[in-house]
Amino acid sequence: MPDYQAPLRDLRFVMDEMLDYPSHYARIGKGDDASPDIVGAILEEGGRFAREVLLPLNRSGDHEGCHLEGGEVRTPKGFKQAYAHYVEGGWPGLSSDPDHGGQGLPASLGMALSEMICSSNLAWGMYPGLSHGAADALHQHGSDEQKATYLTKLVEGIWTGTMCLTEPHCGTDLGLIKTRATPDGEGAYRITGTKIFISAGEHDLAENIVHLVLAKLPDAPEGSKGISLFVVPKFLPDAEGNPGERNGVTCGSLEHKMGIHANATCVMNFDEATGFLVGAPNKGLACMFTMMNVARIGVGVQGLGLMEASFQNSLAYARDRLQMRALSGPRAPDKPADPIIVHPDVRRMLLTQKALAEGGRMLVMYAAQLVDITEHGSDAAERERAETLLSLLTPIVKAFLTELGFEATNEGMQIFGGHGFVQEWGMEQFVRDARITRLYEGTTGIQALDLLGRKVLMSQGETLKMFTKEIHKFCQAEADNAELKAFIEPLARLNGEWGELTMAIGMKAMQDREEVGAASVDYLLYSGYVTLAYLWARAARVSAQALASNDGESAFYRAKLDTARFYFQRLLPRTRGHVEMIRAGGASLMALSAEDFGLGFEI
Amino acid sequence: MPDYQAPLRDLRFVMDEMLDYPSHYARIGKGDDASPDIVGAILEEGGRFAREVLLPLNRSGDHEGCHLEGGEVRTPKGFKQAYAHYVEGGWPGLSSDPDHGGQGLPASLGMALSEMICSSNLAWGMYPGLSHGAADALHQHGSDEQKATYLTKLVEGIWTGTMCLTEPHCGTDLGLIKTRATPDGEGAYRITGTKIFISAGEHDLAENIVHLVLAKLPDAPEGSKGISLFVVPKFLPDAEGNPGERNGVTCGSLEHKMGIHANATCVMNFDEATGFLVGAPNKGLACMFTMMNVARIGVGVQGLGLMEASFQNSLAYARDRLQMRALSGPRAPDKPADPIIVHPDVRRMLLTQKALAEGGRMLVMYAAQLVDITEHGSDAAERERAETLLSLLTPIVKAFLTELGFEATNEGMQIFGGHGFVQEWGMEQFVRDARITRLYEGTTGIQALDLLGRKVLMSQGETLKMFTKEIHKFCQAEADNAELKAFIEPLARLNGEWGELTMAIGMKAMQDREEVGAASVDYLLYSGYVTLAYLWARAARVSAQALASNDGESAFYRAKLDTARFYFQRLLPRTRGHVEMIRAGGASLMALSAEDFGLGFEI
Repeated sequence: MPDYQAPLRDLRFVMDEMLDYPSHYARIGKGDDASPDIVGAILEEGGRFAREVLLPLNRSGDHEGCHLEGGEVRTPKGFKQAYAHYVEGGWPGLSSDPDHGGQGLPASLGMALSEMICSSNLAWGMYPGLSHGAADALHQHGSDEQKATYLTKLVEGIWTGTMCLTEPHCGTDLGLIKTRATPDGEGAYRITGTKIFISAGEHDLAENIVHLVLAKLPDAPEGSKGISLFVVPKFLPDAEGNPGERNGVTCGSLEHKMGIHANATCVMNFDEATGFLVGAPNKGLACMFTMMNVARIGVGVQGLGLMEASFQNSLAYARDRLQMRALSGPRAPDKPADPIIVHPDVRRMLLTQKALAEGGRMLVMYAAQLVDITEHGSDAAERERAETLLSLLTPIVKAFLTELGFEATNEGMQIFGGHGFVQEWGMEQFVRDARITRLYEGTTGIQALDLLGRKVLMSQGETLKMFTKEIHKFCQAEADNAELKAFIEPLARLNGEWGELTMAIGMKAMQDREEVGAASVDYLLYSGYVTLAYLWARAARVSAQALASNDGESAFYRAKLDTARFYFQRLLPRTRGHVEMIRAGGASLMALSAEDFGLGFEI
Repeated sequence: MPDYQAPLRDLRFVMDEMLDYPSHYARIGKGDDASPDIVGAILEEGGRFAREVLLPLNRSGDHEGCHLEGGEVRTPKGFKQAYAHYVEGGWPGLSSDPDHGGQGLPASLGMALSEMICSSNLAWGMYPGLSHGAADALHQHGSDEQKATYLTKLVEGIWTGTMCLTEPHCGTDLGLIKTRATPDGEGAYRITGTKIFISAGEHDLAENIVHLVLAKLPDAPEGSKGISLFVVPKFLPDAEGNPGERNGVTCGSLEHKMGIHANATCVMNFDEATGFLVGAPNKGLACMFTMMNVARIGVGVQGLGLMEASFQNSLAYARDRLQMRALSGPRAPDKPADPIIVHPDVRRMLLTQKALAEGGRMLVMYAAQLVDITEHGSDAAERERAETLLSLLTPIVKAFLTELGFEATNEGMQIFGGHGFVQEWGMEQFVRDARITRLYEGTTGIQALDLLGRKVLMSQGETLKMFTKEIHKFCQAEADNAELKAFIEPLARLNGEWGELTMAIGMKAMQDREEVGAASVDYLLYSGYVTLAYLWARAARVSAQALASNDGESAFYRAKLDTARFYFQRLLPRTRGHVEMIRAGGASLMALSAEDFGLGFEI
């Protein structure tokens, strides 16, 4: 059974040494609430909760799964108690508005904790996880009455939330939704339709569930401009705000899935359910994007959490498992064979996991600072800059960390050899759970279109320039640092190439819009590798400085430098392939007609 | 539920048009047995069996799994009947020696059929699949008496076989095995020990199971030079050769696995079981390699089969599923949205599957000709050449087609969006089933060491040169073919680079043996991409010729050329990353000490 330790030392490195969180928190007016001591204590306590409460339920939850009985969903053994524990501990509202029951700590702290939850029990973590998005949407778009009724309960975790978007015939293309909302004449609406893939749509952890539902008003314009957002509680709140009458929303069935078995993925039937409009009519998609952007970063954190969990366990196995001798001669001559960590290819897999998990953590905590600034930044220009940069990084965080998260969990499984395929070891569960992260909240393909089409090209490259300028400045500042040459030179080269590549795609796209789609996923992966190279170069700088100042923990900083070198030498070269594929353009993708794809087997 | 059609047209292209199987069969003296008509009829009938008998049991078998009850394994519903059907049809001995009940058709034909079985039901296919290796080992190394007793039964499929190698503490490192064989004084041995991961170790499909078991004699030398091979039947044959007394070998438990649920993966306990020595004492590993080489190519075919199955179903979905409009404007304006096959990134995923499945088929059937020649070639020099080339290609077939098979099945799942994660669609089963192929019969890492260390470097590059010379000749012959320029030029360049890269690694390895392991997996993948480029270039040549001669089916040949172009433009550039990573060497892999890997989380 897998073990897990919260990576507290590494978080300290990223937050304190690399990204100077103490100053950051001071700048956004959270220096007192989120002092280094408090942050340290919260992370430590969160790590303990993850390890002691959630981790023991991960394998058993996967095995048991959820069960639908008489319309009610029974979550696996222990899940309800763990959730109660979580609510008692005050975790749900950690980074929520104090006006609505939250503790007002910065969002970034919640994201660091979220990584731990995802590492220890992704399926469990999705129950409270979905509430955040729902709370955010109500916080930003709900009426005062809606906030009073629903928000505090969500923040305190007494109730949980969902996002009801997808329908059987449409996921990406929400303009096609068929769920209808009819005014009931008393200010509310009757919601009717079927939603699928509703995570935590029904469960036994909380006394009420607050569904945020996309539906169409009778007079709605066609397509995505005719979508409105509604809040539809499972139980309609009574006069005291407690769960009252059962609403017309029920779980029709549970999906049988490849992974996250312990999370209830529900078909939700809305049958004249009472709902209340959130925000303006026909502006639902914009409101929903509030939730989706939060959720997308959250899914990137899931990828990170699973990488870390897989890495820790494959490392333990690689140290323990004896098999074959090192090619250059025995390393453990007293044992029947050497531990497999001596073999270069096992090290390649371990270092891939390590470099991606630690680099992913830098990326998440870098983005987390931007989230903090958008929420609490005192300066409007600074807030705007953070928002723009965050909009650029969101699809990268989501898609890059989940694509690479899948790879890294697979490397972890591979290190176990045939044992990796056996459920008891827990390594294959990380792979199965990681697989969904490439799909939900917008597939990698959708994220890539968002990045290249909406974020980069629609802004004429300005959004990207904001980031490449920051990288450029960093490279210039370190240009004479001989110790960092192996990082700064390739980074500066790639940073320049990123701009050129973007320009080249933009020019082609003016002739043919399909060139955007043809380049998009390679472009996203390329962008992810360069972004991580920037962060690894910064980590290398911090580590080199720490070693020079000889403050102790030299092994830790040397390991960072070694991992940075591995990243630059053995992962970053993947950009070469992506560049060539992007430059090849879309012609070879578009040539074949849909009919001719199957000529090898269709009779 | 997935559908499947045997790719008969594509097989005809590969076998008849590209690799000239009719002449090949004539040359190895099988022209009459394996005439084009007979081959066509067998493939068609095999495709029907796969589709009508095996395919309907694939999802249900995955869902039901195997059950161990009172020491007996119950396979999923329908498996036993399907196996009886298979035996009645005379399929098991298709390419076996007629002296032992086989039909004497070439091995290549069996491999083409094997692809279909793997596409339709991998877990089922493993039951008869394991018998081939066991039969081969007995055929080559067994005594006349052993052949008389076991071989015909295996060939006819009345009994099935296993390979019992792995033990709890060792898989790759078979020198560590603990299973003991003690002479019983009457010419037989008492076998005692525990074997794990024994596919088809126990089941209800056949009346007897013939285990081929690695064990150590009392006086055996240490390590891999002290391993002997034994045949250990589940039931000891009586005087008439029918199953008699129950032998001391039992199934202790079944593994719970990520995939291939319908195949029984057994812990086998040997408790003073009666066994008979196969071949010479202490030469068991060499005998076992007979089985393993066959099995390794067989696993590559599994990767191929799963790619094809996934591709066919994702293609159907991509044509059917309506979502979003094409970036360049509506393609199906009469429908609410366009079928997703209009989107370039969906096409990229489909073409990746198509190019890898069709290219993989070329590789398998190319290797299959070599297998035929090693078995039936009339000329000793030709046989030796085929053996050498096959030894080079075996790890590529195994590891490249399974690594890429996993990728391709994941692409298929990705095309389904969130639905891909739902079991009912069957796409995630292809992924789970494909995952084991990267692990068993030697992980990708082990195949890579075999390729680079044993096959390439140990022969001073001579083995590789045999193949690159063939590619070089092809490139020279087509150097003036303007139509093929886009294929021949990059292929010739890569072919030259392959040799240089090998030389560079060889030089480094002379200084430090660890450089072999550091380069190995990147080298294997690089080799796979170049090998497939060679075969795709040959396919392009055949297709261009067919189009020029205007014999009809122009859509088929144009599709081949389009797919070849896609392969060269959008997959082959991956070699760029691998070259850079190989050239970077192993320093960044070896720097970190085993202790320092975990400093981010270990307290």
